[in-house]
Amino acid sequence: MPYPNIIATLSAVLVTAATALAQENRVPATHTTVSPPRAVILIIGDGMDDQQITIARNYLEGANGQLLLDSMPLRAAAQVLAIENEVDGSPVYVSDSANTATSIATGTVTSRARIATTAGSDEDLQTIVESASAAGYRTGLVTTASLTDATPAAFAAHISFRLCEGPDSMVDINYKGIPLGGCPADLLANGGKGSIAEQLAMSSLDVMLGGGRKHFDQNTETGPGSVTEMARQQGFDVVTTAEELQRTGSAKRLLGLFSSGTMPVRLQGENGRAAEKPDASMLNHLHPYLGEVTLPAPMHCEPNPEWAAVPSLQQMTDTALELLGRDNQRGFFLMVESASIDKQTHERKPCGAIGELEQLDEALASALAYAERHPHTLVIVTADHSQAAQLVPATSLYAAYPVPVYTPGMVARIITPEGNLMAVNYATNSFSHEEHTGAHVPVFSNSEGAGRIPAYIRQPELFTIMADYLGLTIGQPATD
Amino acid sequence: MPYPNIIATLSAVLVTAATALAQENRVPATHTTVSPPRAVILIIGDGMDDQQITIARNYLEGANGQLLLDSMPLRAAAQVLAIENEVDGSPVYVSDSANTATSIATGTVTSRARIATTAGSDEDLQTIVESASAAGYRTGLVTTASLTDATPAAFAAHISFRLCEGPDSMVDINYKGIPLGGCPADLLANGGKGSIAEQLAMSSLDVMLGGGRKHFDQNTETGPGSVTEMARQQGFDVVTTAEELQRTGSAKRLLGLFSSGTMPVRLQGENGRAAEKPDASMLNHLHPYLGEVTLPAPMHCEPNPEWAAVPSLQQMTDTALELLGRDNQRGFFLMVESASIDKQTHERKPCGAIGELEQLDEALASALAYAERHPHTLVIVTADHSQAAQLVPATSLYAAYPVPVYTPGMVARIITPEGNLMAVNYATNSFSHEEHTGAHVPVFSNSEGAGRIPAYIRQPELFTIMADYLGLTIGQPATD
Repeated sequence: MPYPNIIATLSAVLVTAATALAQENRVPATHTTVSPPRAVILIIGDGMDDQQITIARNYLEGANGQLLLDSMPLRAAAQVLAIENEVDGSPVYVSDSANTATSIATGTVTSRARIATTAGSDEDLQTIVESASAAGYRTGLVTTASLTDATPAAFAAHISFRLCEGPDSMVDINYKGIPLGGCPADLLANGGKGSIAEQLAMSSLDVMLGGGRKHFDQNTETGPGSVTEMARQQGFDVVTTAEELQRTGSAKRLLGLFSSGTMPVRLQGENGRAAEKPDASMLNHLHPYLGEVTLPAPMHCEPNPEWAAVPSLQQMTDTALELLGRDNQRGFFLMVESASIDKQTHERKPCGAIGELEQLDEALASALAYAERHPHTLVIVTADHSQAAQLVPATSLYAAYPVPVYTPGMVARIITPEGNLMAVNYATNSFSHEEHTGAHVPVFSNSEGAGRIPAYIRQPELFTIMADYLGLTIGQPATD
Repeated sequence: MPYPNIIATLSAVLVTAATALAQENRVPATHTTVSPPRAVILIIGDGMDDQQITIARNYLEGANGQLLLDSMPLRAAAQVLAIENEVDGSPVYVSDSANTATSIATGTVTSRARIATTAGSDEDLQTIVESASAAGYRTGLVTTASLTDATPAAFAAHISFRLCEGPDSMVDINYKGIPLGGCPADLLANGGKGSIAEQLAMSSLDVMLGGGRKHFDQNTETGPGSVTEMARQQGFDVVTTAEELQRTGSAKRLLGLFSSGTMPVRLQGENGRAAEKPDASMLNHLHPYLGEVTLPAPMHCEPNPEWAAVPSLQQMTDTALELLGRDNQRGFFLMVESASIDKQTHERKPCGAIGELEQLDEALASALAYAERHPHTLVIVTADHSQAAQLVPATSLYAAYPVPVYTPGMVARIITPEGNLMAVNYATNSFSHEEHTGAHVPVFSNSEGAGRIPAYIRQPELFTIMADYLGLTIGQPATD
């Protein structure tokens, strides 16, 4: 029978072909540097779920309008994942910004409040910033939060608890006497890497722009100098105003700290108003179907005067793109966060969230303009988790019933530029801050995402997609 | 200068080409019938927003699992639009199932509670079912609601108020004495088209399967026979049980009425439990930061025994596909609605909504299997509007604070098959039924949607996309 010989011959041919293919794939380092530069611009709207986007669209562009975000050619959904710290792998259905940023930055699901460390075992997880830097890419973080806040932190720091933002917040963190936790094992003295601010100062990042000056102004654990001085010693130019930001043309590494903590937001409710509780009459207190209820007075959104003092998210993004892209034959990874969609929603302030989403849309314009000029640029926009705000009827669906029908939580009634009332409900709890919610989040990308981002992913897959795009070989130790 | 001559020559060529193209496009009817049959299967999850999908996914497939829905290759978002009835074109930011189904079925934005009629002027709007029928396509409606409910109704009836479902509900509709409205102008006696049930019986539809027998059992306005008898006279075989549904092989037109009103849902909370109010201690009534709060006991979802008596949404879909597809060289339009994602959410019953989303996923399996066998089949899944349910943390983000932190509304704590607690919050009002919400809704499609459904659309564009797919020339009266 001739078959064995044929099979042997075919096998030899296949082995030869496979070997050739393998050698083809094992691209030498020198080859990589002559390929065109590649860049990933990841824009995160913290808490920017579909309710938030719709609320902002209705206000900023009208019900029939569309955001720049809406023009992105690809839309997907990302399932947000978290696990318990104590029980191995047990799912938690609602996340926070620390574990979600860890998913995106490292590809690993962890427990709430953790920054690029594993649940339970507290091991450090390599981040895309670290891998990209090691592979010769420049890297940057831009945020309207403190740079030490959970989302940016998880891209370049490793710590067990998100509130360990500066050297003074490493043990026994408390809020007005209420103990919230700490990171004693992460102290340098205990063999750790120190606070988030110290880790950022010692990181490989080329650009960091945002808030959080108060964490950098603290003396380092080993003292006596501040974390800001530590950053200067690492080669960072440090700027603190919009004017200084514009004069950073020649900086090699840049640290911008434009506010003490979270940066001020662009919009606020009239006279700073947030959502409020409906005012129930005496009879209505006796029974919810009796008496009358006065809803909070309608309000416009207005500019927040404090915002004028800081650079916009777009200005920070432009500077970062300039510094990361200049004379760079390799490329870069940049994360841009619009942080206060989330923070303003915790505080029941829809106008603040709307203005912050507007800032994201402007930063996206800069990202897309950069991608237009530099074709190998993958632009992804996503949210880390869903949030509490709900767009609810300004006139109840049950208005025909002669009883008061109103939210048990708090509501803001916003007069939109197109002249109608838009009601935003906040009712996940009656505490000072709302809860997050657990819906999967939207993912948008430019055309570079085609064939790379399926319509449904789990959030950690964003890491894999970005790492693949940059050709980073993570978790695959060299076999040769 | 030779340019004018060249331009004249080019113009002549272009005019000739354009004329040829115009004649090409004016396809004679005989030509159309020899092209392969085309079908649109539109699946609507009523109230199926991203919170609902995530809640169902977590329960049915686990946090890391995925629904069949998630495997759809294309995902988009549709902005939901409504306008006021009294003020021309003035936007309303939260919709109901009547105006949204009108958007999808007719391409026109109208006011809440209207069925395929214009806001204010109350003119009839041609629906995709009517246009498809006129163009020789078969048409069908399948729903777990009453067939006369807003979503199916807007595809084949025209009336000013959604509650005018049967002949007995045309004037002075009231709920336990509370007047809700009526449709006197739509009475046959007043030159109208009669109730929704009567219009469906007189429609061009080939298949109608769902609930709502009580509306069809009423005597027609012109009496003495019932609407069901009227349907029989129009050639409909009428079935009322799952067994009869399976024996309808040779029916030409089929009306299935499997329950008096809305069909029973598949799942329910333990012992029928819905979400409940947390139980606050005496001190907590004095101030929300005092005392203690007992959350509702965790519960499993369990089968609803009443569901066993009716056909599943998939069984109805299979029968409809069989009847619509059999010996059909032209093709069909089929709308399949999973109605009680919405209805169970109004009643704060997460298990009911989960089971109903599972039914949708099964009906989708049938649709995709059909599309696999018949390549020119566009399968679209979408929601009509967002809903009240929110997936909230089972353990508050603020659990470290020694005060009660809990919803001001109602919450269900579901024990998922993977063994953890999933909390679902309902807090848009304290009335007997929750409000809808206003977020844009997800749109999914099979590969036939590629290049046809952009990543962001306004809801009425779904109509245009489906009509274009079927080659229907709507709103373009013949010019020759």
